Amino acid sequence: MAQEHTVKAFDDDITRLRGLIAEMGGLAEVALTDAIEALVKGSEDLARGVIARDKKLDVLEAEVDKLAVRIIALRAPMADDLREVIAAMKICGVLERIGDYSKNIAKSAMKVEQRRKFEPLTLIPAMADLAGQMVHDVMTAYAARDAVLAAEIIARDDKVDAFYDSIFRNLVSHMMENPASITSAAELLFVARNIERIGDHATNVAEMVHYAATGIYLTDRDDRKNA
Amino acid sequence: MAQEHTVKAFDDDITRLRGLIAEMGGLAEVALTDAIEALVKGSEDLARGVIARDKKLDVLEAEVDKLAVRIIALRAPMADDLREVIAAMKICGVLERIGDYSKNIAKSAMKVEQRRKFEPLTLIPAMADLAGQMVHDVMTAYAARDAVLAAEIIARDDKVDAFYDSIFRNLVSHMMENPASITSAAELLFVARNIERIGDHATNVAEMVHYAATGIYLTDRDDRKNA
Repeated sequence: MAQEHTVKAFDDDITRLRGLIAEMGGLAEVALTDAIEALVKGSEDLARGVIARDKKLDVLEAEVDKLAVRIIALRAPMADDLREVIAAMKICGVLERIGDYSKNIAKSAMKVEQRRKFEPLTLIPAMADLAGQMVHDVMTAYAARDAVLAAEIIARDDKVDAFYDSIFRNLVSHMMENPASITSAAELLFVARNIERIGDHATNVAEMVHYAATGIYLTDRDDRKNA
Repeated sequence: MAQEHTVKAFDDDITRLRGLIAEMGGLAEVALTDAIEALVKGSEDLARGVIARDKKLDVLEAEVDKLAVRIIALRAPMADDLREVIAAMKICGVLERIGDYSKNIAKSAMKVEQRRKFEPLTLIPAMADLAGQMVHDVMTAYAARDAVLAAEIIARDDKVDAFYDSIFRNLVSHMMENPASITSAAELLFVARNIERIGDHATNVAEMVHYAATGIYLTDRDDRKNA
């Protein structure tokens, strides 16, 4: 079990890097859950909490970048290890984006009025559950370097997109029938769009996890992405 | 004028890195211009061109990342130089995002019907010009390492946000008066939101340019960002 000093130091760095990513994943997941709860309950306190805590994700992203650069510069990792460090930098950027989308949802949540009138307020939490589960599972796939789970998560994004289409149609009908609540309905459109983007970005992370584990890019989803 | 081999190699690498970023900036700017033209003229060909060319931004982003990692690993840059390489990695990610937003606009452009009826179709191009100019100028600031210009660009984002608010209100009124065209109006809402996000991201790049040039982060805009 004799290990060189540099190998031990590299392993310690990678463990810390993975810990920071896991922390960011947890925060991103909670941000989405809280933002949706803020929307459904109309809780301004919850919404403000999501917005305030988003800064923590920005700080962690900067920490990941700094550590990743240090690892590349000092430990000169090769092949698999270098791929892992690059994946960490990319993943932290995406997790920060997911936090941004949740922050957008929290901001929209504060602008929706007479929420009981909106049928999508039952569809949106179901859609958010799906997207949140993708974020949760992709962090599991990352921790376990599980390329099979990563590929399975990518396939789930179609369900999130189908939810989005259904909510979009529902809200457009609602707007036609209730012109007075168009402003609130427009915010709900943005909420649905932001959740759809979270699904896209969880998919992006899954692609990076797949890449880090196998060296193979699962691209060419690009036409479906951002659809 | 005697230069060490490693210094020359480092300078060559940085020059290539800056060239790739400049190319990405140019593509991102053209994508926005073409997406808006596709919207205004209702040209599906133009819209499809924007969507197809977005892949080039993804490829260039991957190239920047690869080159940046190589520079850090082989040249072990310190202080200012390291800051520049990290800024390049971050900036390329944001430029890729700006391309994504333009792609979203192109996709919405294809869904808008009876465009002559929408007053925001004159406001949206004006808003896009402002945001596009921010993207253009921030690339100039990047090339010239101009922290003053970067700070000036950051201040412009408020104008883009004001445009957004005005277009949002206009579209909501339009929806109330013309329930039959709510679907198209909703797409125009998304277009305005995507332009607003491009302004935000041009601002983010300006912050990074400022950081790369001075080492000082101009943060705490976070509450206005994504508003």
